[in-house]
Amino acid sequence: MLIRPERVIADLRELHDLTGDASGSQRLAWTPTWLKARAWFQAKVESLSLEHHLDAAGNSWTTLPGASPRALLLGGHLDSVPNGGWLDGFLGVLAGFEVLRTLAEEFDGRPPLTVRLVDWADEEGARFGRSLFGSSAFSGMHSIEADRRRTDRDGIRLEQALRDCGIDVEWIGDATSERASAAAYLELHIEQGPVLEAMQLPLGVVLGTKGVERHAITFHGQEAHSGSTPMEVRRDALAPASRLALEIRLIARKHPDAVATMGSVKTFPGIVTAVVGCCETTLDMRDLDPATLAQMLQEAREASERFAREEGCTVEWSRIWSIEPIPFDPQLIHLCDQAIRDVAGESHALPSGPLHDAAEVARAGIPTVMMFTQSLAGLSHNPAEDTRIEHLELAVQAFGRLAEKTLEWLAPGSEPTRSFAP
Amino acid sequence: MLIRPERVIADLRELHDLTGDASGSQRLAWTPTWLKARAWFQAKVESLSLEHHLDAAGNSWTTLPGASPRALLLGGHLDSVPNGGWLDGFLGVLAGFEVLRTLAEEFDGRPPLTVRLVDWADEEGARFGRSLFGSSAFSGMHSIEADRRRTDRDGIRLEQALRDCGIDVEWIGDATSERASAAAYLELHIEQGPVLEAMQLPLGVVLGTKGVERHAITFHGQEAHSGSTPMEVRRDALAPASRLALEIRLIARKHPDAVATMGSVKTFPGIVTAVVGCCETTLDMRDLDPATLAQMLQEAREASERFAREEGCTVEWSRIWSIEPIPFDPQLIHLCDQAIRDVAGESHALPSGPLHDAAEVARAGIPTVMMFTQSLAGLSHNPAEDTRIEHLELAVQAFGRLAEKTLEWLAPGSEPTRSFAP
Repeated sequence: MLIRPERVIADLRELHDLTGDASGSQRLAWTPTWLKARAWFQAKVESLSLEHHLDAAGNSWTTLPGASPRALLLGGHLDSVPNGGWLDGFLGVLAGFEVLRTLAEEFDGRPPLTVRLVDWADEEGARFGRSLFGSSAFSGMHSIEADRRRTDRDGIRLEQALRDCGIDVEWIGDATSERASAAAYLELHIEQGPVLEAMQLPLGVVLGTKGVERHAITFHGQEAHSGSTPMEVRRDALAPASRLALEIRLIARKHPDAVATMGSVKTFPGIVTAVVGCCETTLDMRDLDPATLAQMLQEAREASERFAREEGCTVEWSRIWSIEPIPFDPQLIHLCDQAIRDVAGESHALPSGPLHDAAEVARAGIPTVMMFTQSLAGLSHNPAEDTRIEHLELAVQAFGRLAEKTLEWLAPGSEPTRSFAP
Repeated sequence: MLIRPERVIADLRELHDLTGDASGSQRLAWTPTWLKARAWFQAKVESLSLEHHLDAAGNSWTTLPGASPRALLLGGHLDSVPNGGWLDGFLGVLAGFEVLRTLAEEFDGRPPLTVRLVDWADEEGARFGRSLFGSSAFSGMHSIEADRRRTDRDGIRLEQALRDCGIDVEWIGDATSERASAAAYLELHIEQGPVLEAMQLPLGVVLGTKGVERHAITFHGQEAHSGSTPMEVRRDALAPASRLALEIRLIARKHPDAVATMGSVKTFPGIVTAVVGCCETTLDMRDLDPATLAQMLQEAREASERFAREEGCTVEWSRIWSIEPIPFDPQLIHLCDQAIRDVAGESHALPSGPLHDAAEVARAGIPTVMMFTQSLAGLSHNPAEDTRIEHLELAVQAFGRLAEKTLEWLAPGSEPTRSFAP
């Protein structure tokens, strides 16, 4: 298959110039800039006479019909966070498009299997705080009731923003119908972390997405005057919070790939002259192994309760969100590893800390794998996000190779190959 | 001297009913409610035919002229924080007024020394963030240039708010002229802390106000994705901040009366999914001994630098405000201790953590002392602030006794008495 990575790089740059500004990409889902990006992409699709439609949840599907309706899915997302980089999400869409147009050229418009490219709606959740919007509608995991009441910072309801884009929130569940005939799902993405760069490898195969436990943890003590309250009678809510911030690092470091983050600390009343009466914190813990994740959560909870007790405070936990670890398909992991070795010589298998639409697809029972390409300095969700051009080129080549291998694997009568042991 | 505490209690209640609401006292300086409180007070003063005027900084002076121009000053403040209690500041003014009217009655309008009651303007600094406004103009410590640019939350300039109350910011320095003939200053206040309550004592003599070192301390690390950034490569700005929050407690606990408080922690970007890139904290340290305070500050600074270095972060310090410890007059401390013993049997000497107008008066070289009465649960700047009625009654009695003793001490030809060793 004659993949031409330079077309992908040119497309990425064109899209960025069209919908970014000096502060970065600005394609927040359900906004005019996002619609502009989608219109730009649709114009490209139309030049190839491929079938195109939006599903009930606003996911954009481009289909190259094959001899069989069994479909290989390729995906990504055109939406970005505010002041985002030039690769996150778009690399997947545009590399997928390169595969699609190459296959269309090579098979003269009719490959043996159907190939479908999906641009998922609202992966980032940047405007309404609900990430993986379109892919979770597709997987059937999406609860309309919880989301329809969401509002953006201007008070505009999600329901209204969707309606303005032609989507009726009542019917988003119908996106599950796109799952019919889906045989496998592949997604290329930047790593958004520093692991491949530290190993000096351009590409890696993703074992799955880590499970996430995300909690709000609030400590209550007693607000008091900073000048008149002796140290020994204070019930300072910052004390157990500080101890927990340090303890979660020790908890995570017991496990090789586990992470734990206290990303937000808020103090009340939060003034220089008052002992903290209430301290609101957030905790985000991730691991690919469900038992490890459960143990970490349990240890953090026990530590928080011990610290609160020892400091004369109380603690409350409230789950913000959680998701189980989602392992990708062993056979596709093997094929992805091979494709990377074919193109780049060496491969590395790693879990993904960030979630991706691929996790929702895998949850729906469709064999799934992702390929990562190196991120410079691990920067993500930042205008400085970047990847070397030569790595992007290798990534697109390897992704094409993976698509080829997957089509062979899916072809009727193909031999099963050995599964991958990382 | 026939002090009648029940008149003070009645006045306190009347004032609170007039200028408080369900959420507490609302007499913010330079607002209509504060002016209403002052008008109420002036009406009381006028009924006694005492001399009354505002000085150049808006301090309200009520004078009972004596045979000698040498003046005993009594003071407090009618302004409050938003949602304040019913005693903070007003107890001083109204107890002072009780002393004044009793002396006027007993000496038939002409005591041997002049006695002056001052209601300081804007002790709290609640609206413009500049506390001890009027008393520091009196002491000559007030810098007009730094304050005239201050604005309230609606953007109204301090300069304008003063003009609306008939005060020209250009001339506030002229308030120093009120220092002429001032021989001593006495102030009664609630403790605003839990020390006297813990000792089950109604009253205490104040040794001085603690020095304060108030700093903004900002740690810079590297913002990173909470899912994709391995623990070992993080430069989490929350880590050194948490370590410092715990360390300052150890630093303060080396000294009996020292306190150290981290009252505010702000995390940036402050979201559940990002390692903290920047953490802004505040530190407030206080002690009555200048050498102790300097040592504490030095230890905190060194600890912050060590923690930042060990966590791959940097740290910046910026002084918000500081004031040296201000000891009160040894002879007046002795007289206050005696007055308390005369009335309540037992006394206790303690430093004041909170600042007071008395500190500014002492800085101006005028012999000064304060008397504290117990605060319930140490609550302050809160509508739940309270003191038992029987303690308020003892306080007013003891304050009257202190005024009497001070007048004797100031009288020409009086014997020097031994100074107080707490």
